[in-house]
Amino acid sequence: MKIALDAMGGDFAPAVTVEGAVETVNELPDTEVVLAGDEPALLRELSSKKYPQGRISIVHATEVVGMEEPPLQAVRKKKDSSLRRAVEMVKAGQADAAVSAGNSGAMMALALFLLGRSEGVERPAIATEMPSFENPFLLLDAGANVDCSAENVLQFALMGQRPRVGLLSRGEEPSKGNELTKEAFKLLEKSSVNFIGNIESRAVFLGHADVVVCDGFVGNIFLKTSEGLAEVVLKMIRREIGASRVGKLGYLLMKSGIRNFKKKTDYDEYGGAPLLGIRGTCFISHGRSSPKAIKNALTKAAEFARTRAHEAISAEIREYHASGKTPVAG
Amino acid sequence: MKIALDAMGGDFAPAVTVEGAVETVNELPDTEVVLAGDEPALLRELSSKKYPQGRISIVHATEVVGMEEPPLQAVRKKKDSSLRRAVEMVKAGQADAAVSAGNSGAMMALALFLLGRSEGVERPAIATEMPSFENPFLLLDAGANVDCSAENVLQFALMGQRPRVGLLSRGEEPSKGNELTKEAFKLLEKSSVNFIGNIESRAVFLGHADVVVCDGFVGNIFLKTSEGLAEVVLKMIRREIGASRVGKLGYLLMKSGIRNFKKKTDYDEYGGAPLLGIRGTCFISHGRSSPKAIKNALTKAAEFARTRAHEAISAEIREYHASGKTPVAG
Repeated sequence: MKIALDAMGGDFAPAVTVEGAVETVNELPDTEVVLAGDEPALLRELSSKKYPQGRISIVHATEVVGMEEPPLQAVRKKKDSSLRRAVEMVKAGQADAAVSAGNSGAMMALALFLLGRSEGVERPAIATEMPSFENPFLLLDAGANVDCSAENVLQFALMGQRPRVGLLSRGEEPSKGNELTKEAFKLLEKSSVNFIGNIESRAVFLGHADVVVCDGFVGNIFLKTSEGLAEVVLKMIRREIGASRVGKLGYLLMKSGIRNFKKKTDYDEYGGAPLLGIRGTCFISHGRSSPKAIKNALTKAAEFARTRAHEAISAEIREYHASGKTPVAG
Repeated sequence: MKIALDAMGGDFAPAVTVEGAVETVNELPDTEVVLAGDEPALLRELSSKKYPQGRISIVHATEVVGMEEPPLQAVRKKKDSSLRRAVEMVKAGQADAAVSAGNSGAMMALALFLLGRSEGVERPAIATEMPSFENPFLLLDAGANVDCSAENVLQFALMGQRPRVGLLSRGEEPSKGNELTKEAFKLLEKSSVNFIGNIESRAVFLGHADVVVCDGFVGNIFLKTSEGLAEVVLKMIRREIGASRVGKLGYLLMKSGIRNFKKKTDYDEYGGAPLLGIRGTCFISHGRSSPKAIKNALTKAAEFARTRAHEAISAEIREYHASGKTPVAG
């Protein structure tokens, strides 16, 4: 598998992206990484690294899309951005997947513009894997579409491709929720999806669903609230414990346990999230990604491309449309 | 202060509500509690308790509003519910505030029906106090209004009555968000509110805002995600730590630190949340409230009524309307 990496994307690029690429080719025997970005800067980063010859290459790009740049502007004005180069390689069949830790909105826009939507898909979504007390679950949409229709939410469920789909809401009864979730509930109930009904956050974290669907604004609030709270909870526990000598000793003894917990909930471990509903494989990774997170995103993208997962998703959507289950108007 | 308590509301009523009332009158010298509910059941609960004579009384009610009952049905059909009796006492001037750990939607509906909205308020909101790494912050709306307008969100900010108001969104720039938050951003910017802009969950938990506003669906997701995750994080840490003997010892040594952390983040400590924008003082408390949570809700409600906080909120809204800052149409 050959993965194109936007080597200039993310808060710590290109140092972290190059390091992630090097770790990937050192660990995965059958993977190549193409770094898209400023060639002199990338050569400098690579010069001190050890990796199998020929498994990392560079495609020069003169521009970088800023983290806060409006996506459409990035598409229209930055014709030579590292992000665009990475996606273009997928379009041209020169890479099996593209990965970026940069501007996720811009990547979605470029993926839509260059690769296009899968047949029948109205809105591609970001599918983020998150840990629970039991197995991880998939959250979608995690932020691509801030204003969604009920039909969009149903498609997210179809694209999720896992059993036990829950609709994130504010109570378990069908009547609990806003206009969007009430309408989406009806569509999900009638669909072929294994729909378990509305689900609240607590049940999500206990592992009661494999896929959690919602509009991208709510999904992003859910994701960021989880990440932010987990970070602050650990900070608060450390502060409380630091206040006593006995507590400090206890913390030292617990360290490996806390490390295991962190490992299981660490964003780095989850690495990247695919854009689902795109004709091709594109993964986004957190702006604050570490080399390990980049490596995990590259690894996941390679796996996703190898299993041709995006084709399975297209088939699912086609089947839904063919079944004649046309959505009920709101 | 005389507080009317819906003694039949909540998952563990009336045992927990009566115990909470008893603790309240034993601790607060100038407070009376009126228990609304099934008199024989309440007398049974009270028979074994010690408390100052005359400080707890009973108003008999034959019906109970179920936790999942549709609010309008509760208003129309249950004319003799304990919840209704409690709110009616506020209306009749027989109590300074009403508190319920029961159906929050039904309490909002009854408060609107019996007491009415404060002048100029479009939608009353639930204002929940939550802990952060620094000071607590107020989240509103925490769940009363699932579909809101930008003007509603602005009013939530005015009702919050604290400095540093943030708009919960998916990025800090004004352009980040959905249609509602983009419009609310414009209104907040022009208003008299000390608006600090969009805020993401992480910054909220670090204590960067005193008031966090959003629509009630998103607010409820934020609240439940925080509660659910905090619970599951502790569960996961305990599981990881229980896996090693040294870790277990460490946990024992850390116990007081963990206890302090829990105390600071415990829902029980925050107790109750006022309905803001109502002509009168009504507090809702978690369905799973402990006696301590009930006591804290009663105590907060008494304080809220004593300082006539709802009148200050009405004044704020009146002033906003008088200033001629009429909202800009979307």
